[in-house]
Amino acid sequence: VNLVFLNGRIVPGAEARVSVFDRGFLYGDGVFETLRVQAGKPFRWESHQARLESGLRLLGLASTQHGTVLAQQAAELIAANQCQEGVLRVTVSRGPGVRGYSPAGADTPTVVMSLHPRSSAVPAAGLRLVTATLRVLAADPLAAVKSTSRLLYVLARAEADTVGADDALLLNQRDEVSETTSANVFLLDGDVIHTPELATGLLAGVARGVVVEIATEMSLSVRESAIHPKAFLDAEGVFVANVVSGPREVGLLDDQAVRRSNRVAEIRRRFEALVARETGGF
Amino acid sequence: VNLVFLNGRIVPGAEARVSVFDRGFLYGDGVFETLRVQAGKPFRWESHQARLESGLRLLGLASTQHGTVLAQQAAELIAANQCQEGVLRVTVSRGPGVRGYSPAGADTPTVVMSLHPRSSAVPAAGLRLVTATLRVLAADPLAAVKSTSRLLYVLARAEADTVGADDALLLNQRDEVSETTSANVFLLDGDVIHTPELATGLLAGVARGVVVEIATEMSLSVRESAIHPKAFLDAEGVFVANVVSGPREVGLLDDQAVRRSNRVAEIRRRFEALVARETGGF
Repeated sequence: VNLVFLNGRIVPGAEARVSVFDRGFLYGDGVFETLRVQAGKPFRWESHQARLESGLRLLGLASTQHGTVLAQQAAELIAANQCQEGVLRVTVSRGPGVRGYSPAGADTPTVVMSLHPRSSAVPAAGLRLVTATLRVLAADPLAAVKSTSRLLYVLARAEADTVGADDALLLNQRDEVSETTSANVFLLDGDVIHTPELATGLLAGVARGVVVEIATEMSLSVRESAIHPKAFLDAEGVFVANVVSGPREVGLLDDQAVRRSNRVAEIRRRFEALVARETGGF
Repeated sequence: VNLVFLNGRIVPGAEARVSVFDRGFLYGDGVFETLRVQAGKPFRWESHQARLESGLRLLGLASTQHGTVLAQQAAELIAANQCQEGVLRVTVSRGPGVRGYSPAGADTPTVVMSLHPRSSAVPAAGLRLVTATLRVLAADPLAAVKSTSRLLYVLARAEADTVGADDALLLNQRDEVSETTSANVFLLDGDVIHTPELATGLLAGVARGVVVEIATEMSLSVRESAIHPKAFLDAEGVFVANVVSGPREVGLLDDQAVRRSNRVAEIRRRFEALVARETGGF
């Protein structure tokens, strides 16, 4: 089954289309969220919805108002697709508008939700990352928005694909680590987990918040700072995390081995347990 | 008449739709061009097509190959719409793909062309620009690509709209002038026209090349350099230019008056004459 939610209706995926004048298609003028579905329920819906609303505000779009309506529609879509485990993507674009950057007059946002398979495999050797050639901009207010203007992330990921790596590590113009194209970054160092500060130009993932909760459970403290890529080689262990795949250990950065720590497995175990607890099991 | 070219067919605008799984809609994973149509002909088709192809290469997409086929299809669309004067937008996205940044497997690009009204009015007081809050990244290889990941430009333009200005001036993180959301910037200074260098993070517009040609006709030299916004207030005159609206004089930057030069009118006259010559008149 591949049913898609489109502007209030559930339709077959093959019939789910938007106008070529949709500003999401013309200008990447939209925002999205990617949620993990477990036991037929979206994990941490409220956190994702809050970030979605915050993005909509920055775009000057009315909030989806009916937050509870959207949650209900998501639940209906999950049920219609008989989805137990997967990924829910929610996209809100500014909708159809006239040519030109000005969003004036475009006042009917397009809302799309779709379900996708989830993969969470971690290679035995850990993830292989490569440093992306393209840089993000430190202190960019747009970095906080999960917008659909994401070509930089696509090209960085394509760069990783080219050499058979799992993901690309994004640095900002100051050579500081920001994030990977799809996950936040964490370095283990004794009782401390280091993670890049927001000002490096990263998107604060929902999983980042979960990792902080787990660190607290484990009596570890999380410290935000500017991190240079060479710190990867000094760390006791490095992992990346997003809600879809959970915490995943890094084994290699640009062909340099990264130390492995068995505490990453413990963090991952706790992450999965938390997802199971909140969604009602696997 | 509002007919749209979509993947080889000419269809009514209201029926021109793309899949919600099109990566152009999901991730701003595409490129576009905006051309001026005069006397039923696109102005400088080859320059636009060259930039389109260069963007496609950077995205790792096959060129449209059939460059002459695309030109022919554009001509057919213009004829079908009985368009004498207007704007032609050409969009090529990576087409439908799976969820996730990796473009792997998405190998059927979506090609859309549409026609739009052209406006080229210049307020008697000159254009009013405001400095955008959001910054572009200097030396960004992506700046050279007219991609559909353009939320920054949308939000900068919305910021201008909010205060009733005509466009927003984009600076990079070093406080250097890059461009406006829709045009390149030029400062008159004796026999020299100063314009921001490519490394400031700008898109070299087709009109930028035309301005260089006109400057040569007028025995002016064009010098590329790093320009700070305060240079606007010292210049003899400031104008912006894109192919759709031609050269347009700036009168105000952030409520500070910019000096006016009657040489801008001369540059504009020559620009229009050149368009008329190449397209076969008005």
